[in-house]
Amino acid sequence: MKNENNRHKVVILGSGFAGLYAARNLKNTDVDITIVDRNNHHLFQPLLYQVATGALSPGDIASPVRGILHKYKNIRIMKASATGLDVKHKKLLLENNSVPYDTLIVATGMKNHYFNHDDWESKAPGLKSLSDAVEMRRRLLDAFEAAEIEEDTEKQQTYQTMAVIGAGPTGVEMVGAIAELAHHTLRKDFRTIDPKKTRIVLIEGGERLLPSFHEKLSIKAKRDLQAMGVEVMTQCMVKEMRDDSLLLQTPDGEKVLSVATVIWAAGIKAAGFSEIIKNSTGAEQDRFNRIKVDGNLSIPGFPELLIVGDMACVLRQDGSTVPMVAPAANQEGRYAAKLIRRRLRGKSLKDFDYFDKGSLAVIGRNKAVVEVAGNRFGGIIAWFIWVFIHITFLIGFDNKILVLLQWSWTYFTKNRGARLIIDE
Amino acid sequence: MKNENNRHKVVILGSGFAGLYAARNLKNTDVDITIVDRNNHHLFQPLLYQVATGALSPGDIASPVRGILHKYKNIRIMKASATGLDVKHKKLLLENNSVPYDTLIVATGMKNHYFNHDDWESKAPGLKSLSDAVEMRRRLLDAFEAAEIEEDTEKQQTYQTMAVIGAGPTGVEMVGAIAELAHHTLRKDFRTIDPKKTRIVLIEGGERLLPSFHEKLSIKAKRDLQAMGVEVMTQCMVKEMRDDSLLLQTPDGEKVLSVATVIWAAGIKAAGFSEIIKNSTGAEQDRFNRIKVDGNLSIPGFPELLIVGDMACVLRQDGSTVPMVAPAANQEGRYAAKLIRRRLRGKSLKDFDYFDKGSLAVIGRNKAVVEVAGNRFGGIIAWFIWVFIHITFLIGFDNKILVLLQWSWTYFTKNRGARLIIDE
Repeated sequence: MKNENNRHKVVILGSGFAGLYAARNLKNTDVDITIVDRNNHHLFQPLLYQVATGALSPGDIASPVRGILHKYKNIRIMKASATGLDVKHKKLLLENNSVPYDTLIVATGMKNHYFNHDDWESKAPGLKSLSDAVEMRRRLLDAFEAAEIEEDTEKQQTYQTMAVIGAGPTGVEMVGAIAELAHHTLRKDFRTIDPKKTRIVLIEGGERLLPSFHEKLSIKAKRDLQAMGVEVMTQCMVKEMRDDSLLLQTPDGEKVLSVATVIWAAGIKAAGFSEIIKNSTGAEQDRFNRIKVDGNLSIPGFPELLIVGDMACVLRQDGSTVPMVAPAANQEGRYAAKLIRRRLRGKSLKDFDYFDKGSLAVIGRNKAVVEVAGNRFGGIIAWFIWVFIHITFLIGFDNKILVLLQWSWTYFTKNRGARLIIDE
Repeated sequence: MKNENNRHKVVILGSGFAGLYAARNLKNTDVDITIVDRNNHHLFQPLLYQVATGALSPGDIASPVRGILHKYKNIRIMKASATGLDVKHKKLLLENNSVPYDTLIVATGMKNHYFNHDDWESKAPGLKSLSDAVEMRRRLLDAFEAAEIEEDTEKQQTYQTMAVIGAGPTGVEMVGAIAELAHHTLRKDFRTIDPKKTRIVLIEGGERLLPSFHEKLSIKAKRDLQAMGVEVMTQCMVKEMRDDSLLLQTPDGEKVLSVATVIWAAGIKAAGFSEIIKNSTGAEQDRFNRIKVDGNLSIPGFPELLIVGDMACVLRQDGSTVPMVAPAANQEGRYAAKLIRRRLRGKSLKDFDYFDKGSLAVIGRNKAVVEVAGNRFGGIIAWFIWVFIHITFLIGFDNKILVLLQWSWTYFTKNRGARLIIDE
């Protein structure tokens, strides 16, 4: 392309948290930045489940990357898919052309993972993109619509059953939001069915909810969800997915759950570009297909190739790896930018050190769990912390002040104005 | 279905302006109402072009019908497509079941019409539904993205050319909004292309823009659009649509326009249910396939079948027909409700009389044309009238006060926050 000057060329693949933080920390510096992403927007993934359940609109949690960065003349954006990597000539290959780099920052994140059951995706989609969320909203709302006009009571009950597979933070958030949708928002909307009788099931293979949190909080989350009318099934594995049911393996033997709407929150792995990296560099992957990187986030033997965000498998001193959460992605993005700036001045930078700010997961209105600096608590204070952090983030990114109003409105009215079905 | 009491059963097909006004004017009366619509939302069609050009989000101009009407216990809603009409047994046929009626109100509106060129739809979609608007936004924004990464300057120019066919109010609004998008909103967003150089062409077969308005306003609209950088081609017919160009018949002979993005605003006709009515009742249609109705909006020979909204061809005393505009749909919906209430009390109602409140069309920021009670004017006052009427409507429907804020924000910042591309 048109980078025929001598400035250092940084190419950033992916405009999630990690990629965007890297770009922002290189803005107005003496490098030429090209961001490549197949989408035109940065997506605030932590609130995707709110779009899927009709509390927020797609525009509330996503911003065009061009809009976020248009002030910075040294940043160029290409909406394109990366198809390959030429490490010898230092070029990122796109569908119809290529982009040369001096440093390449890869920040392509994770996708859903169905282990050896890729055919499950159509029955049980996951939640990774805006189109996933719009599709999930369509399925959830259409299930109520189908139940309302169904005359066979058994089929009606199947339509009124919703299952979420996987009880990590995503699954817990999702199931809590569905419970609010069915039991509060829609409660007066139907004449034949009673949305309050909707059966909402959370299916988890392990022994407890939120396995990455302390056991005390797992118990609290379970109790909260049950109080909201969610059936929690632990030690329960999906063996088979059928059109209108799931075959489950439970501690009491096999069981069939009649269910029309199923959501997948049970597994993720690194996006496809991880394979391209492995094949071009010989880099090692972990069990999530994440790329194992050196302490400075570069691929062993390729100092000009940096991996940031969820796709980076970064070893910590205690033997664990940096978790796949937004704060880690932000820190890694910032680190990569700083590393490039230091290198250009002929200096080095000490290895990346993850600062753990704690973890939180939301369960529902006024309910969340927080784990920070050895303190663990739940309830409304945890919920307010969750809201505060998320709103601050959103406003910081794109002045999304209106989202705050939208959110307050939803909170006080329990009304989900965005519960629109947009056709496929 | 479950209407086994003796109350009068009103079935309303379609939840646009006409259908919803009919329902609202029968709420809390002694009739059972069933609304059938294939979508779950009422759509504020006059602002659809703002969604297509990224100024508003789908949720800003559409509301779930269940939400709007959930308070009224005598109203039931079915999300389903009507597939037939059994006039003998008074049943509206759906895909898997049927709904009995005592009075049927048909309000299914219009769809795009390509005359004898149905194959043009994929190249030049029209703007009738939310999914149309989301798709159009995707095409418009993707054209800029494709231009930015295109290295062939000729192809680049083709991507940067956008054409709207048809210069009625819809075409004029659309082309004005595209000009604002290209020349203002996106002006700083790209590095390779200059969005200000986008070629925007309005193609009209007739001699002037806005043929339903006075000639003075046509001239004003043309001048305004040209000042906004729009090329206006009148007396110009599309002869052929090709992948990257249009073959046009102009007064100076044939001409090829290289253009990637084409929008159809040149013709509409009644939705498919008009054919079903014609076949079941023998009703006559006009050239738009609208159903010719009696003075009380019923089909000749079928007093229990009422047609309201754009699909009704209602003759006025001066020999013209009631125009296809929102105020007419509202008045007809209200009239149908009143007629039913009068009939139930054994009374009659004088024929429907359309009260013409005037017409208006918006051209762009601060620019509109208004024609009311013999007065014609344009400019910023016309624009404020347009904004006031539309906002009032929106707020009346669903308390969409946030849209007012969103709109003000867009107005003052010239920023279109909703310019998201959501994948197909």
